[in-house]
Amino acid sequence: MDQIIALFENDQIDEITKKINLLHPGDAAQIINELPAEYQVKAFSYLSSELASDVINDLHDELREDVLETIQQKRLVEIMDEMDSDEATDIAAELDEQQLKDVLQKIDKEDSDEIKQLLVYEEDTAGGIMQKEIITVDKEMNRAEMIDHIRDNYDEVEKLYYIFVTDKENKLIGILEASKLLLCKSEMKAVDIMDQDVISAPVEMDQEDVAGIFRKYDIYILPVIDKENHLLGRITVDDIIDVIDEEASEDVYKMVGLENEDKVFTSPLSSVRKRLPWLTLNLFTALLVSSVVGIFEGTIARLSFLAVLMPIVAGLGGNSGTQTLTVITRGIALGELTLHNTYRAIVKEITVGIINGILIGTVAMLIAYLFKGNILLGVVLGVSMVCNMFIAGLVGSSIPVVMKTLKIDPALASSVIITMLTDIGGFASFLGLATLLL
Amino acid sequence: MDQIIALFENDQIDEITKKINLLHPGDAAQIINELPAEYQVKAFSYLSSELASDVINDLHDELREDVLETIQQKRLVEIMDEMDSDEATDIAAELDEQQLKDVLQKIDKEDSDEIKQLLVYEEDTAGGIMQKEIITVDKEMNRAEMIDHIRDNYDEVEKLYYIFVTDKENKLIGILEASKLLLCKSEMKAVDIMDQDVISAPVEMDQEDVAGIFRKYDIYILPVIDKENHLLGRITVDDIIDVIDEEASEDVYKMVGLENEDKVFTSPLSSVRKRLPWLTLNLFTALLVSSVVGIFEGTIARLSFLAVLMPIVAGLGGNSGTQTLTVITRGIALGELTLHNTYRAIVKEITVGIINGILIGTVAMLIAYLFKGNILLGVVLGVSMVCNMFIAGLVGSSIPVVMKTLKIDPALASSVIITMLTDIGGFASFLGLATLLL
Repeated sequence: MDQIIALFENDQIDEITKKINLLHPGDAAQIINELPAEYQVKAFSYLSSELASDVINDLHDELREDVLETIQQKRLVEIMDEMDSDEATDIAAELDEQQLKDVLQKIDKEDSDEIKQLLVYEEDTAGGIMQKEIITVDKEMNRAEMIDHIRDNYDEVEKLYYIFVTDKENKLIGILEASKLLLCKSEMKAVDIMDQDVISAPVEMDQEDVAGIFRKYDIYILPVIDKENHLLGRITVDDIIDVIDEEASEDVYKMVGLENEDKVFTSPLSSVRKRLPWLTLNLFTALLVSSVVGIFEGTIARLSFLAVLMPIVAGLGGNSGTQTLTVITRGIALGELTLHNTYRAIVKEITVGIINGILIGTVAMLIAYLFKGNILLGVVLGVSMVCNMFIAGLVGSSIPVVMKTLKIDPALASSVIITMLTDIGGFASFLGLATLLL
Repeated sequence: MDQIIALFENDQIDEITKKINLLHPGDAAQIINELPAEYQVKAFSYLSSELASDVINDLHDELREDVLETIQQKRLVEIMDEMDSDEATDIAAELDEQQLKDVLQKIDKEDSDEIKQLLVYEEDTAGGIMQKEIITVDKEMNRAEMIDHIRDNYDEVEKLYYIFVTDKENKLIGILEASKLLLCKSEMKAVDIMDQDVISAPVEMDQEDVAGIFRKYDIYILPVIDKENHLLGRITVDDIIDVIDEEASEDVYKMVGLENEDKVFTSPLSSVRKRLPWLTLNLFTALLVSSVVGIFEGTIARLSFLAVLMPIVAGLGGNSGTQTLTVITRGIALGELTLHNTYRAIVKEITVGIINGILIGTVAMLIAYLFKGNILLGVVLGVSMVCNMFIAGLVGSSIPVVMKTLKIDPALASSVIITMLTDIGGFASFLGLATLLL
C-alpha cells in the first residue's frame, strides 16, 4: 500500500501498472478503494481490461461513479465485453441513456442482447441478480455428448458446479452435479443421473426471499425460471453474499433512518440530502413529545427537579424499545419470525419489558428516595418506569410485526417512532403521576 | 402447516411421520420451528436419523436445547454418525460433560477422533467452523487415478467442487476444480492442471475475517491450513452465510446492548438476565445526564418552558449520532473502513452533522420564535442544536474507530454511550446558553 503510494508520488507509472496487474481482483479492488482520493481513478485506468472487469463492481459506489464519468467509450466497451451478463447489466444500469445506447451498439451482439433482456427486471429481484451464462444439456444426452458440449461452452461459464438439464422446450427438469458426471459410467444419460428435485426461483422473486432459499437449502447455485418453468439464468452464492450484506445494512439503516446508498464515502452533501427528510420527521416527533411535556409545564414550574429526572424515564424506555425492535427486526429478516409464532414473540417481549421495568424501576425508586428524601417521588419515578418499559415491549414488538403483516414497509416502525412513543409514554406517566401525587 | 397441526390434534402419528420424512431438510426444520411449542420435540422425534442429522442444527437455539435434553443416547449416536464433522462438533459442544463422553465412546471411532480434534479450536475461528471431510489427491496422480480415488471417497464428501492437491507431507500446494478434471486429457497429472494460487485460511483466523475472504475473492470453498501449510480441513460457503448472518446480528445487537443468544424465542427470564446489565449501565448514564441537567435546575425553576423544549435538542442529537454510528459500524464490518481512510470518514461525518445542524436548527429556531415570540429563545435552541449535531458527528464516528484501533471492543461505543454524550451535550449547551442569555 505505502509502496504504491510512493510509486505514485514518484510518477513511476510502468512500475505501478506492472505491480497492480499481478494482483488478484479482490486485492486490486481493496487497494484502489483505500488509495488517497487523487490516485484512485488513475490506478483503475492502469488495469488491464480483464482485471478491470473484475474490479469495477467491487469499487465503492462513489468511486465507480467517478470512473464511469471519466472513462473512454472504447475502454468501457472492452471492459464490458469481458464481463458476465449480470455484472455488465449492473454497469449498464449506471450509465446515462446516451452512454448506454452507444455502448450497447459496440459490444458483442450476443452480450448486448443479454444485457437488454436483463435490464428489464427490477434490480432487487431474482431476474435482476441472475446471469444468463449457463450450461444446459438435453435430457437425452449421454456422458460423452455432455462432456463435449460442456467443453464447447466452458469458456463462457465460470464456476461450473451444476449443469442444468432441460427438455426440448428449454423447460428445467433436473440438475446434475459436475462431479457426478465425472464419476458416472459412460452409457449413462443426463436423465438417469440428474437430480429431479430441483430448487429454483421464479424470475420476479424478491432478492431477500432468494437469499432465504440459499440460507434454507444450503445451496451454491440456483436456477431461475419463468412462470412456464423455462430456464432463464442462474444465481450464484457469491452474489447472494452481496445481497445478504446489502439487506443486513438496509435493516439496520432503516431503523435509524438511513438510506442504503449512504455509505462511509458518500459525499457529505449527498449524505445531508439523504438524512434530512428523516431528521425533519424527527423534528416533528420531537415537537410532539415536547407538546406532551408542555401539558405539564405548570407542574414543572412548581417542582423543577422533575425536569432533572425526566431524562431517566425517557432514556431507559427508549433503550428498551430499541432492544425489542432489534430482536424482532432481525427475527423477521432471518425468517425466524413468521405469522405462526408472532403472538408468542410479542407476549415474550412485553413480559421482558415488565420484569426489567420492575427491577430497574425499584433501583431508580431507591435512588430517588435516597437523594431527594421523598418516598412519593421515588414511587412516581419507579411506577412510571414500569409503565414505560411495558410500552417499550409492546410497541417495539408489535408495530414492526403489524406493519409487516399489512405489507407496509416496517421502516416506518423504526427507532424514531418507537422513541417518540416511549418518550411520550415516559414523560406523560412520570409528569402525570407527579401532578396527581406530589 | 395447518394440516400437520390437525394431524397432531388427532394423534395420527404414522401419517405425520410419513409426511415429514418426505420433506427437504430445510422445509422440515422450518415446519418444526413454527409448530406450536407442545408438538415441536415430538415432531423432531419422528424424523429418520438421516433427516434429523440435517435438521437439528437448523432448529432455533432453545428448541435444540430441549431436544438434546430429552433425546435418548442411542438416537443421538445414530444422528451424530450421519453428520459431517463440523456439524457433529457443534452438537458435541452443546452436550454436558458426561453426555459427551458417553457419545464419543459409542460413535464411529474415526468420527469421534475428528470431533475431538475439532473441539480444540475456538468456536468462532476457522478451525471452529471447518469440516475434516475433504478429498485430497497427491500431485503426481494422473486423471484416472484421481477419478478412482474420488470415487472411493465420494460418499463422505458432499459438495465436491474443489479437490485439494497436496505433497507427500500433506502440505497444500494447489486446488483443482472438479469440472477441470472432467474436461482434461487422460495423461494429465494433478500438478499440471491444478491452480497454484491457493487462497487459504490459517486455522486460528477469526470467523469474521474468514467471511471477509469469501466476500473478497468470491469463492465457495476455502481450505484451512496450519502454520506449516498442512491441510487441516475446509470451510464451505453455506456455513459462511450463517457466519455473516450471525456477525450482522451481533453488530446491530451490540449497538443496542443485546447479546447474540438473545433471540425471538429465548425464554423471557433468560432475556431479562441478558439485558439487565446493559439497562443498569443505561440507568447510570441516565443519572449522569440527569445530574448535568441538575446543574441548571435554577434556570429551569425560573423558565419552566425550557424543560418543554429540552427533548427536541436531545432527541435530534441522539438520532444524528446513531445514524453516524451505524454508517461507521457497517463500514468497519464490511471492510470498507480501514486505517488508511478513517480520517476522511470522520471529517465527513462531522461536516454532515454541522450542515444538518444548521438546517434543522434554523427551522427549530423559527418554530420557537413563532410559538414563544422570543427571538433570543430561538437563537438558544438553534445554536444548541448545531453544537449537538456537531458533537453527534464527532463522537458517533470517532469513538468506534478509536476503539477499533486500540483493539477495545467497539461495542462499548454503542448507542447508549453516544446517546449519553449527545444528551449531555444537548442539555448542557441548551440550558447553559439559556442561563447566559435569557
